[in-house]
Amino acid sequence: MSELHDLSLTEIGARLRDGRLKAAELAEHAIARHERHGKPLNAYKHWAPVEARRAANAADAAFAAGSDLGPLQGVPVSVKDLFGVACMPIFGGSPRPLPKRFEAEGPVVAALRRQTAVFTGKTHTVEFAYDGLGVNPHWGAPRNPWDAKAHRLPGGSSSGAGVSLLEGSAWVALGSDSGGSVRMPASWTGTVGFKISHGRWSIDGIVPFSPSLDSPGPLTRSVADAAVAFAAIDPHVDRSRLPRTLEHATAADFRVGIPDLYFWDHCAPGVAEGVKAALDELGRAGARIEKRDLPEAAEAHGAAITRGNVAGVEFLASMRAELPEWLETLNPILAGRLAGPDDAANVAASDYFLGLKALARLSAAAQARFAGIDILACPTIVSSPPTEGEVAELDAYLPHNRRMHQNTYPINLLGLCALTMPVGLDKAGIPVGLQLIAKHGDDERLLAAAFAFEKVLGNARQRLGVPPLCR
Amino acid sequence: MSELHDLSLTEIGARLRDGRLKAAELAEHAIARHERHGKPLNAYKHWAPVEARRAANAADAAFAAGSDLGPLQGVPVSVKDLFGVACMPIFGGSPRPLPKRFEAEGPVVAALRRQTAVFTGKTHTVEFAYDGLGVNPHWGAPRNPWDAKAHRLPGGSSSGAGVSLLEGSAWVALGSDSGGSVRMPASWTGTVGFKISHGRWSIDGIVPFSPSLDSPGPLTRSVADAAVAFAAIDPHVDRSRLPRTLEHATAADFRVGIPDLYFWDHCAPGVAEGVKAALDELGRAGARIEKRDLPEAAEAHGAAITRGNVAGVEFLASMRAELPEWLETLNPILAGRLAGPDDAANVAASDYFLGLKALARLSAAAQARFAGIDILACPTIVSSPPTEGEVAELDAYLPHNRRMHQNTYPINLLGLCALTMPVGLDKAGIPVGLQLIAKHGDDERLLAAAFAFEKVLGNARQRLGVPPLCR
Repeated sequence: MSELHDLSLTEIGARLRDGRLKAAELAEHAIARHERHGKPLNAYKHWAPVEARRAANAADAAFAAGSDLGPLQGVPVSVKDLFGVACMPIFGGSPRPLPKRFEAEGPVVAALRRQTAVFTGKTHTVEFAYDGLGVNPHWGAPRNPWDAKAHRLPGGSSSGAGVSLLEGSAWVALGSDSGGSVRMPASWTGTVGFKISHGRWSIDGIVPFSPSLDSPGPLTRSVADAAVAFAAIDPHVDRSRLPRTLEHATAADFRVGIPDLYFWDHCAPGVAEGVKAALDELGRAGARIEKRDLPEAAEAHGAAITRGNVAGVEFLASMRAELPEWLETLNPILAGRLAGPDDAANVAASDYFLGLKALARLSAAAQARFAGIDILACPTIVSSPPTEGEVAELDAYLPHNRRMHQNTYPINLLGLCALTMPVGLDKAGIPVGLQLIAKHGDDERLLAAAFAFEKVLGNARQRLGVPPLCR
Repeated sequence: MSELHDLSLTEIGARLRDGRLKAAELAEHAIARHERHGKPLNAYKHWAPVEARRAANAADAAFAAGSDLGPLQGVPVSVKDLFGVACMPIFGGSPRPLPKRFEAEGPVVAALRRQTAVFTGKTHTVEFAYDGLGVNPHWGAPRNPWDAKAHRLPGGSSSGAGVSLLEGSAWVALGSDSGGSVRMPASWTGTVGFKISHGRWSIDGIVPFSPSLDSPGPLTRSVADAAVAFAAIDPHVDRSRLPRTLEHATAADFRVGIPDLYFWDHCAPGVAEGVKAALDELGRAGARIEKRDLPEAAEAHGAAITRGNVAGVEFLASMRAELPEWLETLNPILAGRLAGPDDAANVAASDYFLGLKALARLSAAAQARFAGIDILACPTIVSSPPTEGEVAELDAYLPHNRRMHQNTYPINLLGLCALTMPVGLDKAGIPVGLQLIAKHGDDERLLAAAFAFEKVLGNARQRLGVPPLCR
């Protein structure tokens, strides 16, 4: 059984197609893993083994009929509870179910549905995606499986996504990322998180947080699996070309810029060391590394908070328009943030407009920084996860939440794409992520670089081992 | 000389290239026309004969050296005083010059500069483009040359653009259109105005009004000339294919939808009659005409005003950020509008965001209305221009200004492209425009339809004759 757990999606796809493996068998494996590890980890808001078995049988029936419906046919996939999935309740992290219309499937879920992916259930999200640590006072936070002693947070807002991969109930976890919400839980759980270029994947069928910044994205256990998921979902990729591009990619093909400024500030013990060691390995493998700053990152992060409060305004407006009654039951941390420094209710339209305009100007400048390089590299999160108890009060919560967004939020604000891959453990034993950043629209090139780097560094399993709570 | 005045840009281009005509001669003709008709018409804020002669000589020198720099090489072009033109003061319709940085040339002017177009000067604009009638209490309104008795308004905000074409000092007049500001002055002066799809031509180098709605666009004396100007400026068009497409276009190639609802409301005497007569002629020539409504037009027009006030918010924010001192000297009509029903200062960011979102939804619905048809057709302006005196007071001004935007503003709000061409005179002797509307991005198809229709209907000169004040 553990052998099955460690297979890549490519290997699983091959076995499903040549009959060595049945989708039903794979689903039973996923269910068994959840039954063994799921309770303390609390990855799922809604666990759906009946539907999963039914989908697996449908996938097997299609395989038996000779129908190849797509790369994720028969593959267990968990879905963040911010996406609509037919016949599964959606809470969006709130205390009660959202109206039925939010269960409608958008293009990303529909793409997986069409290829008979096996939806295992809805993973926990922080309430309406408005938090990076992964807290949820209504439902509890999923537990980070890398600390066997304390209940450390898993990262959010896709707080159950990475945990569902580690416990072994899913090979792909759908998340969404407006300020780091795919990359942050991926980084702290030692998985791979891919924030697609804004606008490339539709956000229809996902509870809106901040449409100017929202991007869906997959979490997976390896870059190789991320490539399979990307090819299965992306509506623009050249499917016949991607596998060849990846196969031939080597570290020496890529010019990597490393910033001096900003991205290394406030690193917790072991974080900078882990990322730098990985970059040294890549340099020895031939990657062409040079210094390259992105001064727009600090400026965008500052401007987004001080001017126009783009995310806050769009969140509050969307909630008032779509879910006004759910504003009344927000958890105290979130309610406190909305009434406090993030106050979005009193922003003037002109400030919001000028905030968006400033971000557009900074985005154009950021795109130009990639002249002569393929990607920028830095730590994904500079901090290590606190325990649930350490951030129970707003005053303690705010600095933690702000610091962890330092390197991820500017990527959304500047309209870039980025991927995190695990490269080590910090002094507290929590995974450290290497964030690779590329220009808007360069998603394939970014994926190819990460794929090449994984060949050098090894994947998560090889590099980090198995988390204590999943053994 | 009058023969020269009536030549098309295609014919002028041919003569300039085979040596029958010099650009200097053409410039002298334009200058003589301005000296003869310019004073009462008041088209220009800044008249620049010295620079025009210099540019004409440069164009001739390039022709003599065998250099073909582009379709508008040596052609007199007037520029709305909202665009930066090097070494010409820019007022933007305000009482004093704007800072020097606003004189910098953006991509549209630069494209003409590169082909040694002959800039004749800066035409009047209403103050910061915030008006459709063409009033300017600081500098006076250009006079509509179709009424020899009363000073009727020429339409705005590109208020001098159409007048400059009629007096004969320019073959192309650059304007900008956020709610009809190219099409409205074109319609009331009996010229052709082309509102390009939003985002297709850069708005850099133009004083911002409402970036979500602003589009530059040319006014010309015929659709044939509009095609030449489009090919000269547009960065995306296939220049080798366009002439063939136009040459072969016939009315029978186009499916024309005519709305029943909204677009015929409030027509002044002669307007509906003139447009319907032209559509009947097109039908007899083979155009396939059917009923097709665009209910999103009324909804967008209502929503833009009642929710979020997109144009007002963006105008006020841009002014506060770029030209705060110019807010203090706004003319009383404009100041009254900003303080009154268009009040943009008190809009909440969330309402503005939801207003934009509503427009995005309506735009998508509007695009879908074009299934099975190429264009929609309707009157460009339903009303006839008042005199300057009739709209001197805010209370009298507001209903006139609102009504004239009825059929043009929704096109900006819905992200469509549109072209107006003159088809007759109303009961007051003022030109009536036929507005052709196409999907966002269908600019070439729209131009081809208008080109084919002009073959059937005749151009402005053939159909309307010469305005009384330009004889």
